[in-house]
Amino acid sequence: MTKVSIIGSGNVAQHLIQAFQSNSEIELVQVGARNKERITHLLDLDRITSDYNQLQFADLYIIAVSDDAIAEVSAQLPFENRLVVHTSGTVTLSALATKNRRGVFYPLQTFSKDKAVDFTTIPICLETENEEDLQTLNRLANAISNAVYKINSEQRKALHVAAVFVNNFVNHLYQIGNEICENNQIPFEILKPLIQETANKIVTLSPKEAQTGPAKRNDLTTIEAHQQFLTDATQSKIYTLLTQSIQNNGKKL
Amino acid sequence: MTKVSIIGSGNVAQHLIQAFQSNSEIELVQVGARNKERITHLLDLDRITSDYNQLQFADLYIIAVSDDAIAEVSAQLPFENRLVVHTSGTVTLSALATKNRRGVFYPLQTFSKDKAVDFTTIPICLETENEEDLQTLNRLANAISNAVYKINSEQRKALHVAAVFVNNFVNHLYQIGNEICENNQIPFEILKPLIQETANKIVTLSPKEAQTGPAKRNDLTTIEAHQQFLTDATQSKIYTLLTQSIQNNGKKL
Repeated sequence: MTKVSIIGSGNVAQHLIQAFQSNSEIELVQVGARNKERITHLLDLDRITSDYNQLQFADLYIIAVSDDAIAEVSAQLPFENRLVVHTSGTVTLSALATKNRRGVFYPLQTFSKDKAVDFTTIPICLETENEEDLQTLNRLANAISNAVYKINSEQRKALHVAAVFVNNFVNHLYQIGNEICENNQIPFEILKPLIQETANKIVTLSPKEAQTGPAKRNDLTTIEAHQQFLTDATQSKIYTLLTQSIQNNGKKL
Repeated sequence: MTKVSIIGSGNVAQHLIQAFQSNSEIELVQVGARNKERITHLLDLDRITSDYNQLQFADLYIIAVSDDAIAEVSAQLPFENRLVVHTSGTVTLSALATKNRRGVFYPLQTFSKDKAVDFTTIPICLETENEEDLQTLNRLANAISNAVYKINSEQRKALHVAAVFVNNFVNHLYQIGNEICENNQIPFEILKPLIQETANKIVTLSPKEAQTGPAKRNDLTTIEAHQQFLTDATQSKIYTLLTQSIQNNGKKL
């Protein structure tokens, strides 16, 4: 049984609290949180502390706070030589204070406050300074997820950039689709099956194999018609740049 | 029972043949195809003709050929005053020869040759010149799909542009994510749950509500770090443009 404590009360902390509490291989010892009331709906008050001096022994401590608070929180912990990890995709392992053994436990998913997540499918990226700590993190991660990866800080940075493309930017393209629909009295519902199928396709095909559309088949008539249709300057720039990128891609083949 | 014939043997034609054949409310009379052998695995040879003069009476004829062949094929049909529709997202109704009653039957989905589709969830966009023909198309569309919409030529053009954003461009962003992973020895698998969740989120949230990430929260440190990470000029341009678009969007709120 892995004994773990969490520092933090935000989105990631709350999802981890729920995942750990319902797991028989994990003992959630305590949660350290400045704002106790943010998590009292998730666990008993006697296991929440706002004073880091009250933190009891655990096999590891997970700092799940905002990126810019990680270094400070790790420096404030009143103990030494224990395993302390953060959950960030962008912060390096070295941001953690050196007085403890350091690591990263990064769940690669977009967490929404009110949406339950199935942790078994969420990839968890692990990094440690030594093999024994990796085993501890592995045990914890495998207890809640079927997709556990060893990823170093440099790779994690790359992964986070890639995630911005496939999550943040993709969602922004959904929004542009939504706006075009609204401006033409078309229900956005009509695009949702296409959006689902686009995401489903790459489960079995590589994105390169799955690529279709006017840019891919170099259909200049359609591209020209679309460019004339787009009166919003930013949308037009995005259309042109992504079309060029798909076209150049073809040439690289 | 709606009697329908299809002209064409490509991707869309093949998926329609399969959907119509398995449906008790539809009688697939014939398929007109230059290359009979492309569809002999789908229906009996005596219902395939390469000679348009052999086309028998049907309630409607669906021209499912490439965009630039639609006008010519419609002109070659040897009959008049019957209902003839095409399946294109980009071609206007007026491209069809005027000797027949014209319409559009546009299934909004990305069809892959080897991937079965569930037609019940595919939106079908209809346009006709008169109400009676709309009823015929409605009957046919509702027999195979639960998502039937009346969409005029101008709206269909908008819809196609929107579809390019949420399908073609989104898939290209998946590919960039894949490339970043490959260049850093990270399995692309690791991003797939995030891709699925991104698509799932907008079933219940609007894309604007679902937007997260460094651009949305104006996290300039992370944006700067990502821009330094991206050495590929095109990827860097796409990152900058989409980040700006998300940021400006916030201001519009």
